[in-house]
Amino acid sequence: MIVNGEPLRPLRAAPERDAVLVIDQRRLPHRLHFERLATPQAVFTAIREMWVRGAPLIGAVAAYGLALQARSDAGDEALRRSAAWLKSARPTAVNLMWALDRMLRDTLNTAVAERVGVAWQAADAIAEEDVRINHAIGQHGLPLVEAVAQRKAGPVNILTHCNAGWLATVDWGTATSPIYQAHAQGIAVHVWVDETRPRNQGASLTAWELAQAGVQHTLIADNAGGHLMQRGQVDLCIVGCDRVTARGDVCNKIGTYLKALAAHDNGVPFYVAMPTPTLDLSLHDGLAEIPIEDRSPREVTHLSGRAADGSLLEVAIAPDGTAAANPAFDVTPARLVKGLITERGLVQAEAGALQALMHPPPR
Amino acid sequence: MIVNGEPLRPLRAAPERDAVLVIDQRRLPHRLHFERLATPQAVFTAIREMWVRGAPLIGAVAAYGLALQARSDAGDEALRRSAAWLKSARPTAVNLMWALDRMLRDTLNTAVAERVGVAWQAADAIAEEDVRINHAIGQHGLPLVEAVAQRKAGPVNILTHCNAGWLATVDWGTATSPIYQAHAQGIAVHVWVDETRPRNQGASLTAWELAQAGVQHTLIADNAGGHLMQRGQVDLCIVGCDRVTARGDVCNKIGTYLKALAAHDNGVPFYVAMPTPTLDLSLHDGLAEIPIEDRSPREVTHLSGRAADGSLLEVAIAPDGTAAANPAFDVTPARLVKGLITERGLVQAEAGALQALMHPPPR
Repeated sequence: MIVNGEPLRPLRAAPERDAVLVIDQRRLPHRLHFERLATPQAVFTAIREMWVRGAPLIGAVAAYGLALQARSDAGDEALRRSAAWLKSARPTAVNLMWALDRMLRDTLNTAVAERVGVAWQAADAIAEEDVRINHAIGQHGLPLVEAVAQRKAGPVNILTHCNAGWLATVDWGTATSPIYQAHAQGIAVHVWVDETRPRNQGASLTAWELAQAGVQHTLIADNAGGHLMQRGQVDLCIVGCDRVTARGDVCNKIGTYLKALAAHDNGVPFYVAMPTPTLDLSLHDGLAEIPIEDRSPREVTHLSGRAADGSLLEVAIAPDGTAAANPAFDVTPARLVKGLITERGLVQAEAGALQALMHPPPR
Repeated sequence: MIVNGEPLRPLRAAPERDAVLVIDQRRLPHRLHFERLATPQAVFTAIREMWVRGAPLIGAVAAYGLALQARSDAGDEALRRSAAWLKSARPTAVNLMWALDRMLRDTLNTAVAERVGVAWQAADAIAEEDVRINHAIGQHGLPLVEAVAQRKAGPVNILTHCNAGWLATVDWGTATSPIYQAHAQGIAVHVWVDETRPRNQGASLTAWELAQAGVQHTLIADNAGGHLMQRGQVDLCIVGCDRVTARGDVCNKIGTYLKALAAHDNGVPFYVAMPTPTLDLSLHDGLAEIPIEDRSPREVTHLSGRAADGSLLEVAIAPDGTAAANPAFDVTPARLVKGLITERGLVQAEAGALQALMHPPPR
């Protein structure tokens, strides 16, 4: 995306192939700062501590992590161990597993001496493929926005949860891709941005992204979305996803399920932007089978922001010693999902349709 | 309630009848500080700026506001004007209107010379009645908790939203009253405390209250409740209310509707603790008829907490200039409410049942 007139991505491979540079997303929207990750350990920390987050982005960054591993030890054992360890950084998003499995496949089939170059190319390919996928998601989602624009006056009101924007991917974003492409075509869009507690990816990342792109938006507490839908102020919901099962159950940021319920209750179409690497055909029942990451209680009891003097600091918002629970994701049953917007087209959240999408019958 | 061994209420009339002292709830959980309100203007500000909040409490505090008005000018015109102005401090909770109408009725029927004394007694009566009402709500809600305790091992898991605790009333709270009474009886209860963005009444007030009372609780982001219900980790929901219509539509803190949807989707009984002064029989369709207060966008984009050095300060959590919307309440349709826990007993959220509750047939 273009930010302040310059093309910008949250992930940039160093030309010397000795590091990957990533935007430290913990500092946004207050600071735009790149961190240089030069080891698999640094990549692990950046993923685990959410300097980078978003299912597609962590897949791509992890791929470079394995390429960095190849620089120090490209033996089978070292690569396998490193991949397993990188996978453990975040348990829920399947892209991490998908990217690392693909990296292993590409490198282990190669002579050890060539693995550094092969691994780097494979990571580059994963990153560039993500850009193409997300652009295609935008193309397939665009008609949904156009259809609303054609039948009503005023902007198309789209509610999104968390950040499934370009900061969550290598470029374009998933849920935001149709929005950016509609905006580029001159369609008036207005985005309701869920704050997305506890880590506030909506308030800090999505609001920032949309402002940079000049897309009209309004920040709301996560609590407000149902009320807005009851009042007819939401035309569409579009969210991202961290893992989707064979039958179309959608695992995404905690709170997504509540918005899907409200959308269903108010007849608002609820769409999920899904790159096919996020589809996990090995799982069926999302609620029973997808591992849900529990994160630190401190993410609930404390919160970072910018003080009046410009400094970034953390404040406590609960009494000292308060116990907190922090499940990071929830599962939206397929029945509440109107459709999945993929790079291959719009598809129903249903086993047969997903199977046909991934394994189309021979012509 | 007993706090640090001392009885404590959020509202205390000065013995000299020249002021009302209230806990400044903006400073909790970090500071327990009383503010002295000696004029109707001070009462207006305390209600408008949410030093005091909670439908029953603002009704009682407003009553003292009118009593303070009587001290300076007890004429019909002055009392009527003051009551109208105090009502405008918060538009949604009907208790404010109810308490001030009752104060006007009691004072205007009295000789002007006696109005100061009458008004003060009337305000005292409203406050004491609130205590009795809330205690009775606890008695009527207790069997719901007991029934769960009898059929399962481990604590009864109750989810609540916002603060409908003793801080929202003169004592006991509404939603918390059955919880405190169950706890007093030795029933193991565990409360899931919704943070309740944007003003965090759950994190700052409910968590504090429950900790003072020794009731086990866990703070969660508002986004997490649906996930917990999907996993069978919530036995009951009990929330308060700001206005309930003749057919049982419930207006309460923004986000309540989302929890009611999740409860319905997962077969979790969703109860509303309702003092009958919160019932507005003049309204029918909550969504169409209850005025919803829009509060300042700054409550969404900025947040207060305690810094590491102990100071209380505000931080920005969104990019500068981000537009925000801040509807303070939403409406939960009666169909999602399992029952209303009132001081007169448990009642269905349904027109006939509510009519019978308020106007029982003569025996």
